[in-house]
Amino acid sequence: MAAEKGFEILEGGGVTSPAGFKAAGVIAGLKKSGKADMAVLFSERPANVAGSFTSCLFEAAPVILCKERIKAGSKLRAVVVNSGNANACTGADGYARASKTAELAAAALNVSADEVFVSSTGRIGVPLPMDKIKKGVEEGVKALSAKGGADAARAIMTTDTRPKEAAVLVETGHGKYSIGAMTKGAGMIAPKLQTLHATMLCYITTDAGLEAPLLSEILGRCSGFSFNRITIDGDTSTNDTVLLIANGASGVKIAKGSPEAEDFESALLFVMQDLAKKMVMDGEGVTKFVTVEVAGAPSSEDARLCATSIANSLLCKTAWFGCDPNWGRILAAAGYSGAKFTPGSVSMDYDEMPVVRNGADAGTPEATLAEVMKRPEFTIRLDLGSGKFSHTIWTNDISYEYVKINADYHT
Amino acid sequence: MAAEKGFEILEGGGVTSPAGFKAAGVIAGLKKSGKADMAVLFSERPANVAGSFTSCLFEAAPVILCKERIKAGSKLRAVVVNSGNANACTGADGYARASKTAELAAAALNVSADEVFVSSTGRIGVPLPMDKIKKGVEEGVKALSAKGGADAARAIMTTDTRPKEAAVLVETGHGKYSIGAMTKGAGMIAPKLQTLHATMLCYITTDAGLEAPLLSEILGRCSGFSFNRITIDGDTSTNDTVLLIANGASGVKIAKGSPEAEDFESALLFVMQDLAKKMVMDGEGVTKFVTVEVAGAPSSEDARLCATSIANSLLCKTAWFGCDPNWGRILAAAGYSGAKFTPGSVSMDYDEMPVVRNGADAGTPEATLAEVMKRPEFTIRLDLGSGKFSHTIWTNDISYEYVKINADYHT
Repeated sequence: MAAEKGFEILEGGGVTSPAGFKAAGVIAGLKKSGKADMAVLFSERPANVAGSFTSCLFEAAPVILCKERIKAGSKLRAVVVNSGNANACTGADGYARASKTAELAAAALNVSADEVFVSSTGRIGVPLPMDKIKKGVEEGVKALSAKGGADAARAIMTTDTRPKEAAVLVETGHGKYSIGAMTKGAGMIAPKLQTLHATMLCYITTDAGLEAPLLSEILGRCSGFSFNRITIDGDTSTNDTVLLIANGASGVKIAKGSPEAEDFESALLFVMQDLAKKMVMDGEGVTKFVTVEVAGAPSSEDARLCATSIANSLLCKTAWFGCDPNWGRILAAAGYSGAKFTPGSVSMDYDEMPVVRNGADAGTPEATLAEVMKRPEFTIRLDLGSGKFSHTIWTNDISYEYVKINADYHT
Repeated sequence: MAAEKGFEILEGGGVTSPAGFKAAGVIAGLKKSGKADMAVLFSERPANVAGSFTSCLFEAAPVILCKERIKAGSKLRAVVVNSGNANACTGADGYARASKTAELAAAALNVSADEVFVSSTGRIGVPLPMDKIKKGVEEGVKALSAKGGADAARAIMTTDTRPKEAAVLVETGHGKYSIGAMTKGAGMIAPKLQTLHATMLCYITTDAGLEAPLLSEILGRCSGFSFNRITIDGDTSTNDTVLLIANGASGVKIAKGSPEAEDFESALLFVMQDLAKKMVMDGEGVTKFVTVEVAGAPSSEDARLCATSIANSLLCKTAWFGCDPNWGRILAAAGYSGAKFTPGSVSMDYDEMPVVRNGADAGTPEATLAEVMKRPEFTIRLDLGSGKFSHTIWTNDISYEYVKINADYHT
């Protein structure tokens, strides 16, 4: 069974798909819009946890707190996530408010405060209003439900237009377990080169049993092939957090080096890639989903530099928005990326259409290329012809709407 | 006299302000708009020349040609610049067309083709239409005039909304000389870190006499403090070219290490900074001119990384467009820049208003900060409190109009 790498997609599933997890999404009153702005995720039993956090030097207070908990080897019983306020760049007072949030949840849930993790997302530099947080935590704890995953996914949204969830069911020789996840993020999204840090809020639950070091190892690898491969605007947030939470409620234990561990990693990677792509598709003002595949690089770092440079180029992103096949901008972005390659060896294709051969025009009529650019999804394949390394990034276009959203954003 | 570092600004001056230079701007027919698209700059006597070029691996054919001329120690008699077509990513055929352009101008001017430099700007990847180029070169040569600087400055424009020129007159103990310049560039503008390469088209003339190695040395230093300190969109072009041309027609000779050389450098730096700022103010869709000053960094590279990260951040640029004092985005951009500093030691001001102290809110009311953001020009001063190095970048906001221009750009 395990050798099949088989997993089943649970349509409509999320963080409460695995056994032993409850969740809720409620209105604390942090968002001016009056929409749900607080999620509580609860594990009925102490769970092992691994985390991956922003590499931004200005770590938000809740990020500092989560990292301390993980470093101390804490178990996890609950996560409290508020949207509408980032609790970032708030100094010692911000840290105290993050701790107080954990204490409030711990009291309401009758667990230890050390086992409560917190996250915040929203405006930077504004003190967390503790009266609203208190109300939200208490109502969230009351509302906890084994069917609350969707409510929680909605409560962590900021400029997201839709909640983003995924879940899979995995069968093993010793029983079944599932993996469920929710994520938010539609701006301030960028892979952080040289790190395996994630770049948004994501909570992944599983009722499989894995020790924390194994969780951490697997999370690191899967982040490298999912969240670190997307970029929306090249900006990395102060609050990025990914938590992978395993409570063992299914009775399936997964040991390092076992075939079951490989299957777990495959299933987790599927969930994380699915959510990563959903984030790109829900990027602020996005009209196009673009896959940038760079091959033929002399090293994986060259491939990554080149793909990232193209994916973050404002000129490329605005051309995609305009359905303009302007391939010169893509070559220019490759050329200034710092990647090493021979310009005359480069070829490029847009989906099935040849665009560039030997560093110059492949001769496909511009009107034909413009048709490809009108597709809601397309792939740009660049072969540098200078080696055997490759890298893929998922990204999107930049529209008027992106500018509007970000010029006007006040939560 | 020399010790005064005195120079006089020549209002309305440009590349033909120095003696012995003629210029013209004519219609070759490359721009669909039917506007002037070819400039010819001519020096009556062979001039020494220094150049600074794009660091993009995809160098346009005319860039390759100019670099070869400079490497070979060629004198300069003329520069032919066309807008409406970049002659980039055009392979060996593109190089042949750039050479042919030089030959056409050489024949019309009765000079050696080796002494004719060429530049192109516009759409990448389209073959240069040689019939139009021939017509433009011939008409341009006929139209050459000692008052043609303004026409030339207009002919090199692409998405620029206005021509950009500057000129100064310098008095020395041995006579007067002047420096004149024109530049174009409103998009694909970014300082290239780790290089002193410039990032747009700029032609600087002087009737002072300087040897090519000294010109090159001074141009390199001045680029570092002018064109390499601006960014509009973070994209570096395939065609960036700066030429500094000295024909000695004033009779004033300037030797390395002399006080006159210092004065020349001061005057040149003034001209280059003036044009650099004019480029930023004329950036595509720009509504605001923003100076980002980073001080207190542990190294100049840290200061540069930090300032560049802020200046290129889409989230910062769209916030400025929206007159949103959202300082968290600026700290986030500093935090992910890769610069080393202690977050708790950071302070920031918007013009005269304190914004951040010790890494957190300085308490100035948001409405007060919003008033500063409404100014057409403001300075963001960030003191990292972690050293004594600083760096300044001039940049601008990103508006709907930027997206519109770049989504629709077809010359």
